[in-house]
Amino acid sequence: MTVFVVGAGPGDPGLITARGLELVRSCDVLVHDRLVCDELVEEAPADAIRIGRERLDQDEINRLLVLYGRRGLNVVRLKGGDPFVFGRGGEEALVLAEAGVPFEVVPGVSSLSAVPAGSGIPVTHRGVSSQVTIANGQGALDFEVLARAGGTLVFFMGLARLAEIADGLVAAGLDPQTPAAVISGATTSGQETVVATVGTIAAAAEGFRPPALIVVGMVVALSERLTGVRGTLALA
Amino acid sequence: MTVFVVGAGPGDPGLITARGLELVRSCDVLVHDRLVCDELVEEAPADAIRIGRERLDQDEINRLLVLYGRRGLNVVRLKGGDPFVFGRGGEEALVLAEAGVPFEVVPGVSSLSAVPAGSGIPVTHRGVSSQVTIANGQGALDFEVLARAGGTLVFFMGLARLAEIADGLVAAGLDPQTPAAVISGATTSGQETVVATVGTIAAAAEGFRPPALIVVGMVVALSERLTGVRGTLALA
Repeated sequence: MTVFVVGAGPGDPGLITARGLELVRSCDVLVHDRLVCDELVEEAPADAIRIGRERLDQDEINRLLVLYGRRGLNVVRLKGGDPFVFGRGGEEALVLAEAGVPFEVVPGVSSLSAVPAGSGIPVTHRGVSSQVTIANGQGALDFEVLARAGGTLVFFMGLARLAEIADGLVAAGLDPQTPAAVISGATTSGQETVVATVGTIAAAAEGFRPPALIVVGMVVALSERLTGVRGTLALA
Repeated sequence: MTVFVVGAGPGDPGLITARGLELVRSCDVLVHDRLVCDELVEEAPADAIRIGRERLDQDEINRLLVLYGRRGLNVVRLKGGDPFVFGRGGEEALVLAEAGVPFEVVPGVSSLSAVPAGSGIPVTHRGVSSQVTIANGQGALDFEVLARAGGTLVFFMGLARLAEIADGLVAAGLDPQTPAAVISGATTSGQETVVATVGTIAAAAEGFRPPALIVVGMVVALSERLTGVRGTLALA
């Protein structure tokens, strides 16, 4: 009777919420993103309608959510990470609200701290960083502001512009010796990490593939000491 | 055989991860924060040792984690939100790493987007905000940087300094008409929200109690249109 906009978490199927997993297991329709892992898609009932997002554009998804929602079916819209952290969950929620379809947003674990955590990097750490700035690496970036922000910088979807971002930060005054990391493969067994400095990260991360997160700040240096931290692959 | 540093999520027991819940249900020792809800504490086995954090200081917690970890017990250190977003998880992880105790960090849903989501506020939204700055409201704040940051500002633990924060942002040039919200009671049935502007939020939020989150930015204005969004209270 409701459309549930659910965050699947950062990749590892065990990192969906208990509530999210329960909803997937009882849905009539599952509309999922490309980044959602197969293990979670397979948790949907055998007779559920399953729609992979890569086959449809955003307008078509919106129309389907309204259509199935109006039919009174339990619809789960499963998105990587958290629906409201670069997840376009707000856009879908607005479409549902305007169409009068009841909906609920079920938050998820965002990559923003889970992916660095999987590489031993806490985005905040007492005495090291008490501020985190999260930016869309594909969007307009104000390097003057970012270079002065202090704390930790996390760029989503920025791998293709890594050299431009690193150069922009240094040109705006950020110390090129500031630690920086690129992490691809988000909390799955394929997670790959490279740690360098803002001055050297673009060369060091050559060959990395999206999806990847860029992390800049002194917290990156903690990763050496936190090698025990790791992601998990078990599903309850 | 391991100490698991687990994020419990923002309050609602259904927002712990599937993996986190599984670990709580099979632990020998549960060390939990004051902000972790009773429903999750009760998920631990009946014969598990349960230690509420409020009775101990951080050094004592660290010692206990090492002690029980070395005994080969399965220890779950359950923290509100995400262990690495103002959760001091990094400090505990470092202590364990230095003591040679195996550990694993299991990320959680952070309040940073889940709490605004529960009030119909997406912290990012295409065309409105593609950047989020998260700051510790109890720490040193650079209002010049924050006022220029653009996008969304989220302050943790800032309620006691709300007037100072709002005044500081306006004095540094932020438009006093910028929408602002205070949300207390984090994704539980007691969640309370007030929406105002940076210029009026301190007066509007009088009487609110911690824990509370302060959200500043144009995304706050979306809350009117997203009233269908709500938290959940069910535990799978």
